[in-house]
Amino acid sequence: MKRRSIGVIMNGVTGRMGGRDHLERSIMAIRAAGGVRVGDTELWPEPVLIGRDPTRLRALADRHGLDRWGLDLDAALSDSANEIYFDAQATVQREAAVRRAIAAGKHVYVEKPAALTSASALALATEADARGVRHGVVQDKLFLPGILQLSRLIEEGFFGRIFSVRGEFGYWVFDDIVGGRQRPSWNYRAEDGGGIVLDMYAHWRYLFDELFGGVKALVNRSERHVPIRADETGRRYDATADDAAYAIFELGNGAIAHFVSSWCVRPYRDDLFVMQVDGERGSALATLRDCKIQPAAATPVARWNPTGPAPELRAGWIAAPEREEPMNAFRVQWEHFLRHVVLDEPYPWTLAAGARAIQLAELAQVSSAEARWVAVPDLVA
Amino acid sequence: MKRRSIGVIMNGVTGRMGGRDHLERSIMAIRAAGGVRVGDTELWPEPVLIGRDPTRLRALADRHGLDRWGLDLDAALSDSANEIYFDAQATVQREAAVRRAIAAGKHVYVEKPAALTSASALALATEADARGVRHGVVQDKLFLPGILQLSRLIEEGFFGRIFSVRGEFGYWVFDDIVGGRQRPSWNYRAEDGGGIVLDMYAHWRYLFDELFGGVKALVNRSERHVPIRADETGRRYDATADDAAYAIFELGNGAIAHFVSSWCVRPYRDDLFVMQVDGERGSALATLRDCKIQPAAATPVARWNPTGPAPELRAGWIAAPEREEPMNAFRVQWEHFLRHVVLDEPYPWTLAAGARAIQLAELAQVSSAEARWVAVPDLVA
Amino acid sequence: MKRRSIGVIMNGVTGRMGGRDHLERSIMAIRAAGGVRVGDTELWPEPVLIGRDPTRLRALADRHGLDRWGLDLDAALSDSANEIYFDAQATVQREAAVRRAIAAGKHVYVEKPAALTSASALALATEADARGVRHGVVQDKLFLPGILQLSRLIEEGFFGRIFSVRGEFGYWVFDDIVGGRQRPSWNYRAEDGGGIVLDMYAHWRYLFDELFGGVKALVNRSERHVPIRADETGRRYDATADDAAYAIFELGNGAIAHFVSSWCVRPYRDDLFVMQVDGERGSALATLRDCKIQPAAATPVARWNPTGPAPELRAGWIAAPEREEPMNAFRVQWEHFLRHVVLDEPYPWTLAAGARAIQLAELAQVSSAEARWVAVPDLVA
Amino acid sequence: MKRRSIGVIMNGVTGRMGGRDHLERSIMAIRAAGGVRVGDTELWPEPVLIGRDPTRLRALADRHGLDRWGLDLDAALSDSANEIYFDAQATVQREAAVRRAIAAGKHVYVEKPAALTSASALALATEADARGVRHGVVQDKLFLPGILQLSRLIEEGFFGRIFSVRGEFGYWVFDDIVGGRQRPSWNYRAEDGGGIVLDMYAHWRYLFDELFGGVKALVNRSERHVPIRADETGRRYDATADDAAYAIFELGNGAIAHFVSSWCVRPYRDDLFVMQVDGERGSALATLRDCKIQPAAATPVARWNPTGPAPELRAGWIAAPEREEPMNAFRVQWEHFLRHVVLDEPYPWTLAAGARAIQLAELAQVSSAEARWVAVPDLVA
Repeated sequence: MKRRSIGVIMNGVTGRMGGRDHLERSIMAIRAAGGVRVGDTELWPEPVLIGRDPTRLRALADRHGLDRWGLDLDAALSDSANEIYFDAQATVQREAAVRRAIAAGKHVYVEKPAALTSASALALATEADARGVRHGVVQDKLFLPGILQLSRLIEEGFFGRIFSVRGEFGYWVFDDIVGGRQRPSWNYRAEDGGGIVLDMYAHWRYLFDELFGGVKALVNRSERHVPIRADETGRRYDATADDAAYAIFELGNGAIAHFVSSWCVRPYRDDLFVMQVDGERGSALATLRDCKIQPAAATPVARWNPTGPAPELRAGWIAAPEREEPMNAFRVQWEHFLRHVVLDEPYPWTLAAGARAIQLAELAQVSSAEARWVAVPDLVA
Repeated sequence: MKRRSIGVIMNGVTGRMGGRDHLERSIMAIRAAGGVRVGDTELWPEPVLIGRDPTRLRALADRHGLDRWGLDLDAALSDSANEIYFDAQATVQREAAVRRAIAAGKHVYVEKPAALTSASALALATEADARGVRHGVVQDKLFLPGILQLSRLIEEGFFGRIFSVRGEFGYWVFDDIVGGRQRPSWNYRAEDGGGIVLDMYAHWRYLFDELFGGVKALVNRSERHVPIRADETGRRYDATADDAAYAIFELGNGAIAHFVSSWCVRPYRDDLFVMQVDGERGSALATLRDCKIQPAAATPVARWNPTGPAPELRAGWIAAPEREEPMNAFRVQWEHFLRHVVLDEPYPWTLAAGARAIQLAELAQVSSAEARWVAVPDLVA
Repeated sequence: MKRRSIGVIMNGVTGRMGGRDHLERSIMAIRAAGGVRVGDTELWPEPVLIGRDPTRLRALADRHGLDRWGLDLDAALSDSANEIYFDAQATVQREAAVRRAIAAGKHVYVEKPAALTSASALALATEADARGVRHGVVQDKLFLPGILQLSRLIEEGFFGRIFSVRGEFGYWVFDDIVGGRQRPSWNYRAEDGGGIVLDMYAHWRYLFDELFGGVKALVNRSERHVPIRADETGRRYDATADDAAYAIFELGNGAIAHFVSSWCVRPYRDDLFVMQVDGERGSALATLRDCKIQPAAATPVARWNPTGPAPELRAGWIAAPEREEPMNAFRVQWEHFLRHVVLDEPYPWTLAAGARAIQLAELAQVSSAEARWVAVPDLVA
Repeated sequence: MKRRSIGVIMNGVTGRMGGRDHLERSIMAIRAAGGVRVGDTELWPEPVLIGRDPTRLRALADRHGLDRWGLDLDAALSDSANEIYFDAQATVQREAAVRRAIAAGKHVYVEKPAALTSASALALATEADARGVRHGVVQDKLFLPGILQLSRLIEEGFFGRIFSVRGEFGYWVFDDIVGGRQRPSWNYRAEDGGGIVLDMYAHWRYLFDELFGGVKALVNRSERHVPIRADETGRRYDATADDAAYAIFELGNGAIAHFVSSWCVRPYRDDLFVMQVDGERGSALATLRDCKIQPAAATPVARWNPTGPAPELRAGWIAAPEREEPMNAFRVQWEHFLRHVVLDEPYPWTLAAGARAIQLAELAQVSSAEARWVAVPDLVA
């Protein structure tokens, strides 16, 4: 077994998502498992932690037994052993840092959104291609166990022609006026880049692109249901960003997607995100972690009965069994990216895909503001 | 106890809905319970069955121990003991018959849709008012036990401000090419008045009007997912009517309604129709027969967890208990109509309401055909 | 992260409550968690253990890895690094020691009861205010997870107007004639400051003050149900203190509180202390660690049925979910006091509150002795 | 087997309680069981239904296959075959009718309250004794299966000395403004004889008298928590009667009883009425239908634990098993009265007991109005 080390500059991992999902559960988990096995080689990521707070960086490095960390991004970029630059900084800081990494000839892998606008993200894609480096954007929902199952069902032709996709995402986000502190307050201020459309429609875009042939048009209605919230200091502020959005999408495969995304919903369902797909030969309901199916052959004749419960509606579904033990979604994509870098395996989740994700959120805002359907044009650099 | 008899001409009750819901479970059930008690009087409906097939009429009359039936509507209308005319004929025949009944001075009560167009229904309303007779249109969903519970919750102020209403209606309607025969084939032919929008949006309209302050605007997408079906003779035909519709409504109380109505869905839910209402102080999920609630105080802090099931999402709901034994929805509305006729009690479910119901379906078709939002204007005669 | 050390003299922590609740689960737990975080500062308590038994003090210090302990209170008070004096001695010794600490300019935090009489406690409050030091009295029940939930429900307006509060506290305290040794025998001797009224009514007072707008009047009946017990040496003695008390309180918010406190009860309930609150819009039942609710919308229609069980009475309740992980009640109040001392944050649980707590017990004894209602006057120094 | 027929005039049984509890489940059930067997004789009640509404009387008689009914009480009283007069009329009509029955030499058995005041009830007792007729007042709670079990436990000496009795009665009575119609509106108007004290304290009195040696003194607080309700016509009215009452009683056996009676409570307990008795050797909790016990030998050592549930508090109780199949409580007392009349068996539940029951309610109102303890004097004619 040969070890192929790959230096990975990780910028912005002192935050929750960077530290937990990318460092601990992806990079460190890959190392704990003996690297990514490729034939008789193990791809071995060697992280360098970069950030602005030395106390927190040291603590994080200590916790994981790492000794490479620092404040100087340029120094890290100038080390040729570092082949990959990963960025999980706040969105406003991402574009400039990624540009420097590309200029330094690093492969780049970045959290979503890849930039503040689809145009900027597309420009980065163009620059990376010109410089000849590989690039990727995190699209973790694609690698959730339930979505992977759904993807397999589509590939296997389980559905026949697909008619419709219904997505329900959300949960109740307390206003934090009494108790609380669920999520940072910037999420609810438009001027700080908050809002559920910017956050979630990026995810919906890559799901549509990967599973349903893309998206042709949409009509969206953004709402701000909860007008006043309290911030981290307990002070009340006006929530200016949308906290719920209701949409109809026309998908590339001809199906209609009907989606609700809301931080103002009390979910009575199997998971915080569920997506049902209906097709001529069967239907499936994906949660984060699994997928239930009802093939045509098991579809019951419905009966309208207002006098008693209808347990048969749930009883007619069966679990799509796991074909393999599911792996953390972030780690799956990291393994793909490492293979892409070293082995040149295909990798569709690029900066261009990241630009498309932002584009959908931008168009959804236009649709809501102008109360009209909008077409989704191809993104051209 | 005094008996106040009321002759009721029932036209078109040899069909399933007319015979079961209106004759058996409403009129005959009222008689079996000793009439509708009002003080020391019992309102006692005396049905006269009118139709076109004497064999089926006689059989139906026999089954219920009735001796008044016939083929001659005018004869029945000329009998002054018959105070009410009820129409459950096919929609195309309704308008003319109702007009004759109004002219004969009968109170009229009709199945939905009240006429082929909102304009025709409104014209009937105007004629009935001019003639001084009372009128009503069946709006059975309002009187389903689950919807009555929801209505009570709204009255009690359970929700605080209501944000959103999500409706899911539908089930799988087999194409009847193999097996089947669920519903008459005209339902799937636009030229015969079929289509899920015409059928269901009338119901959504009165639910919105009664529960959520009406409807201001909508965007709708009608689809015909299943293109070929087999008819009553087994012959294949082109389905020309919509069999699914996806919509966003802006309601009178400021809430957004997100509705899917589909005959091409395999429901994984508690009932064939469920409607969730979310408000600042609580949420509820109504099925046909009951209602679950989650008050703000019981709303859990959500956790994103792709590694295991999330039973807490359902465990956080509790049944809204029945305050009284539920009665058949059709019968409830019949009792209201009988009281309206005899006692002049208020009755909002008139031909004008029936016209509004048709209007919403008409506007939904415009919205889909022209791919745009449409406002819902007041209906003026 | 800067560390702000605060010397804390802990007097009387070799006892069970002082050692476990205050030293181990509060002060040492705060240190184990990295202090109390305030912005970029961590408040870091540095305990000095003071007592009378050097063997037990040394053992306690060793167990916690502390090296500061001693017998000389005055020496500790003269060290300016010690900013806080904490007292968990026997009640009879508290007043004098607290007075010395105040005179030495220390902030004082004391176990309940703050003194032997409400007048003495109030005098200490006056002296502390005059000396310009901060002060607090332990009111741990306020910070129990179940009571915090209840407090949140009140803040959120869950109950609407509150009608009634029913409290049941108690358990069976064996007389120790056979087996036993649950609690020190002084608890059952009036001449030694024992009795359930002195012990528990102090707690009821601050619960009433904090949650229900205070208490206006009460009628109380104290009882001594078990007349003979055995002491620590196995000798029988006459129990002279009350071991059960039955009361009706008129609360500041207009509600009636109906409380039983008893060491002579075999509880059939969810916890050793439960408190039910009934209001127009909902009811809740708090235990030590959680809270169940029944909103008005889920309130069933009751049926009197002597022929079978009534499981619906419990089924109609749902848990009020935790909004955050609960912390030890004593530690919560310690963290508040440290912030109060350093940051001048508001702190209502002062010596004056401690005086009010004793006052309620005093008035309850008057009410029982004279068999009459007594008003609860404002305490004025 | 000889049949000994006893004519029973039943006045006022067209109401719910009279018709169901006394006629159907008592008198008719006794007949269905072949009468009350006494040696080789069966006591056979022959009811005569007396009332004011011939339609309802005839319907009731028909339902039970009876042919003796009428409007004329005096005629019935003049028939010497009618030995017993039973009265379940509205309270205001009772006294005069009972007086006529006594004058006619009938044994009298009456619903509670026996009269409008304790003085009137006592006067009736005196007249009945003077006339030499037997008399009884319904005290159904005594014969509930759970209370019979409790009574047996007391008789068997299970408790040793009894310390305390805690009673919780009540349920939520909706205000009927939205939905509803649980109980007649007069219950909530003081001027019509409503109020929970008048209704329930009569029951508490006979339970105390029969089980705990009577009652020596009490302090009571009556409240009217819900100020506005809707009546049978849907009109709002001011509720003027008490709807909750909180009391402390000093019982004849030296125990303290702590009772809450409320129509404004959402019960989280095993039944609509539960009564716990604690004594030195054991405790019991009676519901309507059964009784749980915890003997001293099974009493656990309690642990204060705010970090987890305390299931041991319920697990330490065991059911007191039924010694015989329970019978309807009303029927049990009827059988006793029939035996008393025919066999002269002792019967303590007389008009004098009925007077004592009313007395307790009267004193409770005095206690609340004057905010003081009141003694319970012997009732002397």
